[in-house]
Amino acid sequence: MIEITPILDHKGNKPLYIQLSNYIKQEIMEGRIQPNEKLPSKRKLSSYLDVSLNTIQAAYDQLCAEGYVESNPRKGFFVATISEEVFTNPLYSPKHEKQDKLEKKINIDFNSGKVDLRYFPYTVWRKLAIQSLYEDQNELFYNGHPQGDLNLRAAIAKYVFESRGVKCSPEQIVIGAGTQILTGLLCLILGKQHTYAVENPGFHRTKAVLMDQGVKMKAIPLDENGICVNQLAMSDASVVYVTPSHQFPNGMVMPITRRMELLNWANEREGYIIEDDYDGEYRYKGAPIPSLQGLDINGRVIYLGTFSKSLIPSIRISFLILPLTLLNRYQDKFMLYKQTVSRLHQDTLFRFMNEGHWQTHLNKMRTLYRRKHATLMKALSMYMGDNVIVIGEKSGLHILIKVHNGMSEEELINMAMEVGVKVYPTSVYYDDPKVNQEPKILLGFGGLTESEIVAGIQLLKKVWW
Amino acid sequence: MIEITPILDHKGNKPLYIQLSNYIKQEIMEGRIQPNEKLPSKRKLSSYLDVSLNTIQAAYDQLCAEGYVESNPRKGFFVATISEEVFTNPLYSPKHEKQDKLEKKINIDFNSGKVDLRYFPYTVWRKLAIQSLYEDQNELFYNGHPQGDLNLRAAIAKYVFESRGVKCSPEQIVIGAGTQILTGLLCLILGKQHTYAVENPGFHRTKAVLMDQGVKMKAIPLDENGICVNQLAMSDASVVYVTPSHQFPNGMVMPITRRMELLNWANEREGYIIEDDYDGEYRYKGAPIPSLQGLDINGRVIYLGTFSKSLIPSIRISFLILPLTLLNRYQDKFMLYKQTVSRLHQDTLFRFMNEGHWQTHLNKMRTLYRRKHATLMKALSMYMGDNVIVIGEKSGLHILIKVHNGMSEEELINMAMEVGVKVYPTSVYYDDPKVNQEPKILLGFGGLTESEIVAGIQLLKKVWW
Repeated sequence: MIEITPILDHKGNKPLYIQLSNYIKQEIMEGRIQPNEKLPSKRKLSSYLDVSLNTIQAAYDQLCAEGYVESNPRKGFFVATISEEVFTNPLYSPKHEKQDKLEKKINIDFNSGKVDLRYFPYTVWRKLAIQSLYEDQNELFYNGHPQGDLNLRAAIAKYVFESRGVKCSPEQIVIGAGTQILTGLLCLILGKQHTYAVENPGFHRTKAVLMDQGVKMKAIPLDENGICVNQLAMSDASVVYVTPSHQFPNGMVMPITRRMELLNWANEREGYIIEDDYDGEYRYKGAPIPSLQGLDINGRVIYLGTFSKSLIPSIRISFLILPLTLLNRYQDKFMLYKQTVSRLHQDTLFRFMNEGHWQTHLNKMRTLYRRKHATLMKALSMYMGDNVIVIGEKSGLHILIKVHNGMSEEELINMAMEVGVKVYPTSVYYDDPKVNQEPKILLGFGGLTESEIVAGIQLLKKVWW
Repeated sequence: MIEITPILDHKGNKPLYIQLSNYIKQEIMEGRIQPNEKLPSKRKLSSYLDVSLNTIQAAYDQLCAEGYVESNPRKGFFVATISEEVFTNPLYSPKHEKQDKLEKKINIDFNSGKVDLRYFPYTVWRKLAIQSLYEDQNELFYNGHPQGDLNLRAAIAKYVFESRGVKCSPEQIVIGAGTQILTGLLCLILGKQHTYAVENPGFHRTKAVLMDQGVKMKAIPLDENGICVNQLAMSDASVVYVTPSHQFPNGMVMPITRRMELLNWANEREGYIIEDDYDGEYRYKGAPIPSLQGLDINGRVIYLGTFSKSLIPSIRISFLILPLTLLNRYQDKFMLYKQTVSRLHQDTLFRFMNEGHWQTHLNKMRTLYRRKHATLMKALSMYMGDNVIVIGEKSGLHILIKVHNGMSEEELINMAMEVGVKVYPTSVYYDDPKVNQEPKILLGFGGLTESEIVAGIQLLKKVWW
């Protein structure tokens, strides 16, 4: 039998099964238990450790759930091998999946998808979440309006107006389980006859949706103010997808002049702008610039928002705001599509917003991320100084750095990995990733503590110079 | 000021705001408060009724949320007019929306989308739901595996094997926020070069997805055993969508011989069968017939399941089971699509299944629906006898009746409405709804009590003869 001899704290705060599964995870990650090894049977381990069979079962379930271990019916539990082919797409970076876990041990992960959950108001959310789980609330168990519940839509309309200058009525909002679902729906509403322009570099997940929907796509380069409107105008595109609050990945904030140019283009072309405001809540420098939607007076802008960066990524609540012409088309033809977000979550989020917790939470997170952002900027300046150029630092939860040391993007990432720091490429967001670009490294800071940020930058300095 | 003088029970079980909003709803539904009328200001009503401003606010929010009332910023609250154009699609029947509410007052609704929530284990679900809402569980707040969490997939694999004879590993399962989302994904995986055959009559929501995905569709007629395989074979279709456990809407269970014919067709055509098992949990008559997926040995069947009919419709958890060839294609090309179901709900459902509550709940619901089904059959036989022919009564949560009284489908529905009974058409599920069919009326019974079922049939008898 593999030696599994954890020290379990029977009076500790953590349940025994979590202690046990964490211990086994650690052993796997540190190579003391190898891929394909068989774990002891549940019964054996239960008697060996003198804990209940249920605890062992729960620990094994947990390990299976997280992908460290696989259950082979009638044969037992085996340490997982990582099936590389599952993740062959270079763009697919499964943030919390197996792959990462068997890579070199990562101590500091500059992942841009992470947010800080230490300050999430768990108690309030729990209280609100169970309020919809009583018999007299059971209307919420039935399917609701295809666009989502009106009370939540009203709360969203109020919030985006106050926070982003977006002008809409709740009737214009369509809630959905993620930006990709809503982008797919939008392709149906807009129609597939359009050529869709996208930013180059730009958000890969949206490009995948457009490609899979079979629409014609055109990659438009960026300058320092965002998408080049003159190049857009020369193309045959009549719809453009942009991230003006914080361009993904380059991070520039589109200035007001460029916004007006883009709106003019849309008017003249009688086309549409899809404004993806994925992390516009967080702004550190410069005056607030109204959303394109708020500046638009001709119904040419579709606004896309999400609660992924500001609340809980895995709750999957995003929303579309449609101009009236498109709203009519949607209501005429696509109301047969059922709402994809659970009404229970819609109800919890509504209560959370309605009772003022959302604003409180957002304020707290803004302060927190502002502090982390300042720490990151300071550490970069202190340890790397003129050896790096920082890009896209005015807002959002990630920045880019150009590193002047002659290394390629791949080398920079690999060297970082040597010291347990994970940093991210940007070449994958280009239309043609092979084009020779000066390497730019993406650093997300939302999920790291301030001391992790500083330690990470110190380690990077050590291996990059 | 509109006269709003409810009798509020300050010591009652129902919160005051619910009592108040119910009262106003009633007044609106019964025409005593008219569309476009302005409701009293919150402050006025608060002092008039001597209840807190918060209570009035909550009642008005509730009315807004349910669509009875609209808030006009700075002007006040107005009784809604029903915008007919919102629901112009005859296939779209918004089950809980405005439209219904201003129709004649419905006392008994034979809606097939309703399930019985009186026996839902609220206490258990609440307990499990909050377990994932603690700090030390916050991994669940981040995005998980694109296919859904492995522990839930393992629980589903076990359940479908035991309950429906479906043979799969958890790796073959893709969880998604509803059958439509998964059908859209399936079109991408299968490719759009195929002609997709659908049952005629058949499920309108799936047909809408296929149409919107731009694939070629072919409607294939049914005989008493389900889809006509010889007609399917004569078509150029290479994918077929079927509902073999309980054909929608006609309700027949596909016998084993027809299943084998269909599997042979798929093998010879090297095509695929999409088996939508939307309410296969409930069976009343005849021996259990294995799912097509369980009978298939050549990887030609894609199984589609859902928790909508058996647990909570609005929680939006469905799943696809892919044969290995398609699984590889999905994992190669479509893993960029994020999971659409909240991980918090996935976790709650996993715990619910893992701790045995799911099986208990399902057994209870089976007994309950069996009793309701028997009551419905008995009432039909007692009050209508030979004047109706019942179709599709072997399983599921709805039946069809052919009514021999010379009335058209529309007349039957309108006459029922006269006595406050809502019954549903089937013509809308046909490829060409105008084709002269003997009218068949759809009666769902899941959401009604036994006495409501009997009363409903008595009322129908009164107006139909």
